[in-house]
Amino acid sequence: MPIARFSAGGPPRLGKVFEDFLIDLTVAAPAAPSDLVAFLRMGEEALAEFRRVGGDSPGRHALADVQLHAPSPNPEKYLAIGMNYADHSAEAKALGVDVPQWQTWFNKQVSCIHGPFDDVISPRVSEKMDYEGELAVVIGKACRYASPEQAPAFVGGYMIANDVSARDWQARTGTVTLGKSFDTHGPTGPWLTLPEEIGDPHRLEIRTFVNGEVRQHASTADLIHSIWDQISYLSQVMTLKPGDILATGTPAGVGVARKPPVFLRPGDVVRVEISGLGRIENRVIAEA
Amino acid sequence: MPIARFSAGGPPRLGKVFEDFLIDLTVAAPAAPSDLVAFLRMGEEALAEFRRVGGDSPGRHALADVQLHAPSPNPEKYLAIGMNYADHSAEAKALGVDVPQWQTWFNKQVSCIHGPFDDVISPRVSEKMDYEGELAVVIGKACRYASPEQAPAFVGGYMIANDVSARDWQARTGTVTLGKSFDTHGPTGPWLTLPEEIGDPHRLEIRTFVNGEVRQHASTADLIHSIWDQISYLSQVMTLKPGDILATGTPAGVGVARKPPVFLRPGDVVRVEISGLGRIENRVIAEA
Repeated sequence: MPIARFSAGGPPRLGKVFEDFLIDLTVAAPAAPSDLVAFLRMGEEALAEFRRVGGDSPGRHALADVQLHAPSPNPEKYLAIGMNYADHSAEAKALGVDVPQWQTWFNKQVSCIHGPFDDVISPRVSEKMDYEGELAVVIGKACRYASPEQAPAFVGGYMIANDVSARDWQARTGTVTLGKSFDTHGPTGPWLTLPEEIGDPHRLEIRTFVNGEVRQHASTADLIHSIWDQISYLSQVMTLKPGDILATGTPAGVGVARKPPVFLRPGDVVRVEISGLGRIENRVIAEA
Repeated sequence: MPIARFSAGGPPRLGKVFEDFLIDLTVAAPAAPSDLVAFLRMGEEALAEFRRVGGDSPGRHALADVQLHAPSPNPEKYLAIGMNYADHSAEAKALGVDVPQWQTWFNKQVSCIHGPFDDVISPRVSEKMDYEGELAVVIGKACRYASPEQAPAFVGGYMIANDVSARDWQARTGTVTLGKSFDTHGPTGPWLTLPEEIGDPHRLEIRTFVNGEVRQHASTADLIHSIWDQISYLSQVMTLKPGDILATGTPAGVGVARKPPVFLRPGDVVRVEISGLGRIENRVIAEA
């Protein structure tokens, strides 16, 4: 069962999700931390507490009655890889973007991290707001110089990300980070699903919808650089830490690559679904 | 007088620096927070406490007896601007790098932040470790949609940064962040100097030395995009937060642009000095 970060009148805390309700861990497993990074840092001890919580434990809330928040709201790092599905690389190449030899990592500034069902803002300074549905990894343990074979042991869980992008700002410089980092442009969630529930993350179906119409539809089997290669590569440079977010790439079907290009406008609703992970859904609103 | 983050046997805390000693604020001004971000967030109240501390206040330590730490050790963001001195842009252009029309912002991952006198690691996976001396701004107040005229009010202080760069990794992709973010490659300090002590930050002399030989020597008067324009531009995208670090660009004289190129090797010592801000000095060591 996944770990949700939720609130129901009080401060955000963690819950264990069952079908259409969750159990508040501060009630049912008070020895487990109420902060996700502290929970991940505690490791097996926290997970053992978590596993003991059943659907009949105290602290029950209907999902309809709680607000779900970004599972990892203030990680040290939110890195994302570009051009990591062959079909998306082809559509980008058709737009004149060089397809790189190396893993291409850029940043979403962590200040953009946003809840799974919160409204995202159409910036007044951008005319080209776009979506990118992605599978995201949350790091579970500090990781440096991991081989691809060792990498799975460092995963804390999986969730869905929409790498919302302001294409006009993104195109200004090769570093791209500003176009990826407008406030509210990092919806994630709806919760953290544990690796033991997913098994191999390279066989998940991902779909992005705009106003109910499917725009992206792919399998994570088509990742060019596997999640294990991603973690291994990054860990040659820096220590990955519990809570860090890695967005693993987006497939074909983004708005900027349509003919003619179509961008997001206030009132549009973007939904990203991944098999086994649930869905996130965000309405685009005009900037106040 | 500057605010240092230091330790002397206990956990890191803040001190007010005088000539060759500092006063421990936890002793002389206990109402001020011992964490820099909390100090900045408190604003005028913390600064008033700070100003009351004199050289004869209790809590005195000789600078020679304390360890100085990175002033802002875990900011939400560490952004750096590329190609922001005309002479450095010219040397980069000679190496085939496009000089951009827009402010070119990239990330140093905050996990690379390092102390002002700590050893920096020559990574076993890079052959092209290089230095970049820079003036760094630390944000003092949350900032969104600031005009250049409003920007000075959001500065918490100034410090020195060495934007240590692994040129081989930097050159792999246009996003450059991995080459800028090896663990230990973000020395900053030696302390935070308040805006009121600096006045206009666009008239500071900056010099970088390797093993005592001057390699970079410039004035911040030569910044292409002023610090006020930098803050204003970024604040169109994202909320800047207290503690965030902006590295404002490096002048000509980096090792990769020398003919032939010269890179840092274990045993080299890099010192960066800026008038009014002091100096940082880091020895390069081999990876264990």
